[in-house]
Amino acid sequence: MFYYYPNPGDSYYQPGFQSPPYPNHAWTISRLYYSNTAELREKQEPITFVLIHGSWADSSFWNGVAAFLRKKGHTVYAPEYAGHGADTTKNANHAMMTQSIVDFIEGNNLNQVVLVGHSFGGTLVQTVAQAVPDRIKRLVFFDAFILNDGEMLAEEFPPPVQAAFESLIQSSKDNSIMLPFPLFRENFTNLASLQQAQQFYRNVKPEPATPFHEKLDLKKFYSLTIPRSYLYLTEDNVLPFGSSQYGWHPHMSNRLGMYRFLQDSGDHFSTTLLDPGKIARRLYEAGRD
Amino acid sequence: MFYYYPNPGDSYYQPGFQSPPYPNHAWTISRLYYSNTAELREKQEPITFVLIHGSWADSSFWNGVAAFLRKKGHTVYAPEYAGHGADTTKNANHAMMTQSIVDFIEGNNLNQVVLVGHSFGGTLVQTVAQAVPDRIKRLVFFDAFILNDGEMLAEEFPPPVQAAFESLIQSSKDNSIMLPFPLFRENFTNLASLQQAQQFYRNVKPEPATPFHEKLDLKKFYSLTIPRSYLYLTEDNVLPFGSSQYGWHPHMSNRLGMYRFLQDSGDHFSTTLLDPGKIARRLYEAGRD
Amino acid sequence: MFYYYPNPGDSYYQPGFQSPPYPNHAWTISRLYYSNTAELREKQEPITFVLIHGSWADSSFWNGVAAFLRKKGHTVYAPEYAGHGADTTKNANHAMMTQSIVDFIEGNNLNQVVLVGHSFGGTLVQTVAQAVPDRIKRLVFFDAFILNDGEMLAEEFPPPVQAAFESLIQSSKDNSIMLPFPLFRENFTNLASLQQAQQFYRNVKPEPATPFHEKLDLKKFYSLTIPRSYLYLTEDNVLPFGSSQYGWHPHMSNRLGMYRFLQDSGDHFSTTLLDPGKIARRLYEAGRD
Repeated sequence: MFYYYPNPGDSYYQPGFQSPPYPNHAWTISRLYYSNTAELREKQEPITFVLIHGSWADSSFWNGVAAFLRKKGHTVYAPEYAGHGADTTKNANHAMMTQSIVDFIEGNNLNQVVLVGHSFGGTLVQTVAQAVPDRIKRLVFFDAFILNDGEMLAEEFPPPVQAAFESLIQSSKDNSIMLPFPLFRENFTNLASLQQAQQFYRNVKPEPATPFHEKLDLKKFYSLTIPRSYLYLTEDNVLPFGSSQYGWHPHMSNRLGMYRFLQDSGDHFSTTLLDPGKIARRLYEAGRD
Repeated sequence: MFYYYPNPGDSYYQPGFQSPPYPNHAWTISRLYYSNTAELREKQEPITFVLIHGSWADSSFWNGVAAFLRKKGHTVYAPEYAGHGADTTKNANHAMMTQSIVDFIEGNNLNQVVLVGHSFGGTLVQTVAQAVPDRIKRLVFFDAFILNDGEMLAEEFPPPVQAAFESLIQSSKDNSIMLPFPLFRENFTNLASLQQAQQFYRNVKPEPATPFHEKLDLKKFYSLTIPRSYLYLTEDNVLPFGSSQYGWHPHMSNRLGMYRFLQDSGDHFSTTLLDPGKIARRLYEAGRD
Repeated sequence: MFYYYPNPGDSYYQPGFQSPPYPNHAWTISRLYYSNTAELREKQEPITFVLIHGSWADSSFWNGVAAFLRKKGHTVYAPEYAGHGADTTKNANHAMMTQSIVDFIEGNNLNQVVLVGHSFGGTLVQTVAQAVPDRIKRLVFFDAFILNDGEMLAEEFPPPVQAAFESLIQSSKDNSIMLPFPLFRENFTNLASLQQAQQFYRNVKPEPATPFHEKLDLKKFYSLTIPRSYLYLTEDNVLPFGSSQYGWHPHMSNRLGMYRFLQDSGDHFSTTLLDPGKIARRLYEAGRD
């Protein structure tokens, strides 16, 4: 009645593995061989990516990733948004930042977009998705915030971190938060060398603080049925690990309902800049149909 | 009184690493070199594996893994069980499924078996171990359920998932649960391409629902002293992450008492089919003495 | 006002990735290529490491790691401490063990030390840091205990493990704890072969039990501002996983305040001996400025 051992002719069976062209006892080698050649042969479905960076960054954060994605035939946009890059409006609020990206997507008449948000960019993915849901094919959150309806960003930080940020805001002249280098080095670029961390830090500018305290209306976001993915890097120490109240994964990712999950090694900031090929590959896997 | 720095002649020291035959500054390369050659030289203790698949699958799930294990000299059985594969009894219950595997083990007079269960197959590992404990050398749970005594499978799903399954059962004509493709694609095959997920889905058949609601008598299981291992793939999103109430690891694995733990990257379903060499290797590491 | 897509001339951009010298569709290969050559070119800042082993070990635990670090130009010491190695004082207490290391650091007039503690060695990192803080540049905890002020080591084990240890102490003649082989094999060397585990076990000696019940005064430790790192291996099953009360990470690591986090695969004991190049590399990344 039952068949008792695998039959190579059955479904599920990968024909390529049936008579492997490599000797016995060579599992790891064969795995490298197969994964690389599979990758070499792989035809990727062309995707239109819109990449939204996070705080203390600008759109150049995506340069390396975008270059790798374009090499694979994808169309990649990394729009800048209010209060960042060339725009130095320090009182930029969340609605202005959202509008920058909405204007960009509508202005370029983009459709079937895979919208990727990193870190704070996740909250913009939420609000942009509310604004132009019909133009978006999939949402990808990459070590990104996903706020509850009516929540403000500050609530996602433990009280001592909130207090530290308040103090930095007070000491600024323009309602901004400048990330201290030790925090940037230890928690954002923990896998980089000191020299690399210093190089990246030279591009860090004070972050507009207004969105830190804005409660977002996200009712519509939680009614959207756009498919969504979460990409988590395991050495990201910007939010607490293993807490039921805080953290990237599973605390944020759990808010997505049914979602596609991907995980890799990496820290919050430097892995994207130092290993852009890996991040590009995982964003493709997160973003494809 | 103390010796103050490592002495290459001491114990623990791996002779091969004492005078590495590769240049300085080549850690990663040397690691690849060593791990591969160590693997090439490795003599594996021959194991008798009995592999038990999970729900929405049949024994062909193991084809690739079995092929790799056999190449390494192991004896591999992947018995089919009631309600699966060629047997279309949709009212098959847990006792019938258990009996299929017990009959197979006794019929073939298998001994010193390493019994591996994937997913729902974990509950069969529990009941088969109760039935023929003397024939089993080690239990291996691979992203598998491990139920408490008196528990039913349904209790291991969060209430919304339970409700969804109930609804699917109601809509079936034969007390079965057919996995909707979007769920299969996003949570079972999240690392696969759409094309691969579709290919795997063509083999998915409605799962008999009876075991979903059967409370299992597992008193004897929790008195057994057979050694046990848990293999966990970190991107398996079929059960919730980071919950104290649900999840593969550590929620299920904690029920094993002293156990051997192994972890790798991978999702619930497609990694076994797409990277069978890796899974075969990890099952060997989980199953050896 | 904004620039809309990455500009290769911008900051953050890694020049090397701008015009990759390898063909399209070769991400994994290129990543290996880059990571290896980057490593080959990498100039490491020379560090003075002092490596403190854990229980059931002696300083030879570090032999492989030390050899790799020295090849990279670092200065490495692995001082033995009271009750371990050639010193068989079974009533050695925590203060004596601390003093061994303090004497070694002062006797050799070491400065700018990166002090690494593995397992129980973490508690010695804490007390040595209290004794000679000005000689230490960074603390590195590697799957290591970090006790609260006034805590004893025993409190970091779940009650059943505490009870098992008490029973082992009672059955010893000299207030020591001998690790039973099955526990060593399944929970300390879970990634090793049986033969390797047996080989390592031949060097395991009964551990002085006094520090198990000593409450440590760690007030000064928690006032120190020496930078600190935590290196966690994901298959380390010596302490429970996913518990808010027990475990290496995040339970212990959370006690460090702001710290640099690194993670890799590996078990508690055998990975350091079997893949010392990997551990050496991660300790360098944990220990550099």
